[in-house]
Amino acid sequence: MDTYSLFLNRVNELYYLRTAANILSWDQETMMPAKGAAARAKQLATISALHHEHLTSPRFGDLLAELQTKSLNADTQVIVREMARDYHRAVKIPTRLVEEMTETTALAYEVWNRARQQSDFATFAPWLDKIFSLKKEEARCLGFEKSLYDAHLDDHEPGLTTTMVELLFARLRQQLVPLVERAEARVDKKEDGWLCASYPLVLQEQFGRQIVETMGIDWQAGRLDVSPHPFCGGAGPSDVRITTRYKENDFLVSLFGMIHEAGHALYEQGLEGEYFGTPLCDTVSLGIHESQSRLWENQVARSADFWEFWFPRLQQTFPEQTRNLKLERFYHTINRVRRSLIRVDADELTYNLHIILRFELERAIFEDQIFARDLGTAWNEKMKQYLNTVPSQAAEGVLQDVHWASGLVGYFPTYVLGNLYAAQFYRQANIEISDLKENIRKGVLSPLRAWLREKIHRHGRRYSASGLVERVTGEPPTADHFIDYLKGKFGS
Amino acid sequence: MDTYSLFLNRVNELYYLRTAANILSWDQETMMPAKGAAARAKQLATISALHHEHLTSPRFGDLLAELQTKSLNADTQVIVREMARDYHRAVKIPTRLVEEMTETTALAYEVWNRARQQSDFATFAPWLDKIFSLKKEEARCLGFEKSLYDAHLDDHEPGLTTTMVELLFARLRQQLVPLVERAEARVDKKEDGWLCASYPLVLQEQFGRQIVETMGIDWQAGRLDVSPHPFCGGAGPSDVRITTRYKENDFLVSLFGMIHEAGHALYEQGLEGEYFGTPLCDTVSLGIHESQSRLWENQVARSADFWEFWFPRLQQTFPEQTRNLKLERFYHTINRVRRSLIRVDADELTYNLHIILRFELERAIFEDQIFARDLGTAWNEKMKQYLNTVPSQAAEGVLQDVHWASGLVGYFPTYVLGNLYAAQFYRQANIEISDLKENIRKGVLSPLRAWLREKIHRHGRRYSASGLVERVTGEPPTADHFIDYLKGKFGS
Repeated sequence: MDTYSLFLNRVNELYYLRTAANILSWDQETMMPAKGAAARAKQLATISALHHEHLTSPRFGDLLAELQTKSLNADTQVIVREMARDYHRAVKIPTRLVEEMTETTALAYEVWNRARQQSDFATFAPWLDKIFSLKKEEARCLGFEKSLYDAHLDDHEPGLTTTMVELLFARLRQQLVPLVERAEARVDKKEDGWLCASYPLVLQEQFGRQIVETMGIDWQAGRLDVSPHPFCGGAGPSDVRITTRYKENDFLVSLFGMIHEAGHALYEQGLEGEYFGTPLCDTVSLGIHESQSRLWENQVARSADFWEFWFPRLQQTFPEQTRNLKLERFYHTINRVRRSLIRVDADELTYNLHIILRFELERAIFEDQIFARDLGTAWNEKMKQYLNTVPSQAAEGVLQDVHWASGLVGYFPTYVLGNLYAAQFYRQANIEISDLKENIRKGVLSPLRAWLREKIHRHGRRYSASGLVERVTGEPPTADHFIDYLKGKFGS
Repeated sequence: MDTYSLFLNRVNELYYLRTAANILSWDQETMMPAKGAAARAKQLATISALHHEHLTSPRFGDLLAELQTKSLNADTQVIVREMARDYHRAVKIPTRLVEEMTETTALAYEVWNRARQQSDFATFAPWLDKIFSLKKEEARCLGFEKSLYDAHLDDHEPGLTTTMVELLFARLRQQLVPLVERAEARVDKKEDGWLCASYPLVLQEQFGRQIVETMGIDWQAGRLDVSPHPFCGGAGPSDVRITTRYKENDFLVSLFGMIHEAGHALYEQGLEGEYFGTPLCDTVSLGIHESQSRLWENQVARSADFWEFWFPRLQQTFPEQTRNLKLERFYHTINRVRRSLIRVDADELTYNLHIILRFELERAIFEDQIFARDLGTAWNEKMKQYLNTVPSQAAEGVLQDVHWASGLVGYFPTYVLGNLYAAQFYRQANIEISDLKENIRKGVLSPLRAWLREKIHRHGRRYSASGLVERVTGEPPTADHFIDYLKGKFGS
């Protein structure tokens, strides 16, 4: 076999292992009986260790080095470039550090879980110190140009730097704070009695399925199931699995949850299956992934146009519960702005402030301005400053997210990037698809899905996130269009 | 790390990979969307290749060789002995042959599937020649004492030889043929109209769950799902998964299917979880596994004692459908003897003749008395001889089973061994648990489950199959008790 075939076999093997692990993780959240957890952890650890061992093997490094001296076609260049990126990041981190991180976060997760239940920050604080200290060490191994924190941003959003995030977020924060105040002042205090009625789960599922099918989800290549924390998982474009959770007395949770995850799923289903097992059939970054879910959830499904078609269908599905409900009221409710404590429950506007807060705290730790154990106090100060509310207990404050306990640092900013990209993409879609909104008002969603597939999904890891944004919209990532969108929607 | 710790890590890794693959296979049959098949095949092939590579690695061989010279405690001896068995079998087969077999059976499966649909034996015949020729080559690699066929028997039932099977089956056949004739003559021709009524699937499931829960299935460590071909899979005692299929107009299919698979599942759940990842927490052979499913399905759940408790509950579940049904009639129906064409639909008596036929054909090929391509004719001759019926088309004859297309040779005999062991175990259980049948009449099944766990399940691969039978019953495997059981049930 020639060098490239030998290389490709190894690349395929890495992807097959990773997608196999993804199915096992999906099973863990949706199907696995309770007592199966310990065995599953061992299976996943074994596969993940083999993946790391194969990715960092000297033989793989040699094949990469040899191919980098050869002249390759465009596709092959991408595969070599992206695998080289994965390889070089992986070899920089010593096995000892990988193991210490795995062990620490496994224990920290348990401590966090109990600490959150008892709203006891003090118990978790030393673990935060330990985790952030390991993350700093990891960043030093990975290397960076300007800021230590860059290493982690680049891990989740290739090419992203602290300076770039600072610029984007500074502008966004400045615009958001007054916008939130004005929008919140306009929200009426009327009770939404209809929302607390009983919405049978089976009908919630049926209505949600109608919408995501219209979005273009292919159930021959996907599934919908239930899990406590909704997610999109699976194994490439032919097997994409989304989950949701149902609340009988608040159907908006499952409704927007399903649409959000279906946005992720359309991205996965839109990858080119013929490249399965290579970076050409892999998603480019968390920010781009999130842009797809946010675009469908917010730009599309929280718009008045969308509900012109779907509101009568909602009323058909739940005639008793929504008998006296008007479209205008429904639109008002699903776009209600409220400064609140919990990120995952936040509206389109304040959500970004929750993220900016987390970014600024992470950066402050990485720049040695605060200790991780001081996050409790620092959190409350920033909440007061940006959201004018302070949690009365840590469970509703610094302990609310699992990310830090899991060792995910530099991850939060991708959520806001997703919002920025979504606004930028959606603006462009409206320029290029002249009757886009008219179609949405008629319940026709396929032109948008086709455009996203053509412009974004099918490219896999061919372009960097910012390169892709520029290629699609003609300009680099910017906060401008997101701010315009928010002002247009919430400013008047 | 010392030699044993290094060795144990590798053993664990092999088991974690294998159980991970088992979950992926279960998912393939129950959950995977249709288009996911190609990706799944690649994931499973990758994991299976890594498993083979690690099992046959020279380093693993060295560790084994070193440990075999050391004095070890009883548990450790078993782990080393059983892994040595797996290792030596695996290294004997050249990679080239493994690959050729995998490729051939993958293609042959498709050919068989189409051939069966069109009842076209001629298309499949050359594939049978190819497969049996590869299986002979494999047997020569594995080595054998007397008969080439021994190699495959030993693969599925360690220690089993052609001579042993011949002796057991000759005696069984001789007794069965007249017994079947007499029993069949006694079966009345009355229509079972009640059986063809509509039995809602959800109630079938509910009733079946009641029974298997009473048998002792732990749903915290297991699941029940639907698949076209029922099976018991999963990942060790903490995560056992059974499937069934439902026919609205024949609830006996799901009922006895569930009990059968639950028998398998109790074996898996009865393994010692603390040894997970070693042969001490693995099942000993296919024959022993099948004995557990048959014992519950036939000895217990096709007995009159069992239905004394459950028949009134069946009538409560399906009051309309079974209003005029009497317990005696129900017992008669679930034990109806009929010489028929299809193995999986056969009764307790004739089932064994279907297997003996397959064993004799496989042996004849391995002893060069017939070619595999002659199986069509040979099949029909033996059907006439043993079951006095001849299939009018190959789909109902030689093409009915998937085993040969999948390269499973020497596998069928373990089904009858399961029957023999089941009868031998159950006789012993009745000796040792004095009020066993009285308990069963009262719907109390836990003493039997506890006895099976204590005597059989918890031992893992500590004893050979025949060694285990002798340890539990005081005598080596024999057909006597099975014949006695059949004569007692069907002879009078």
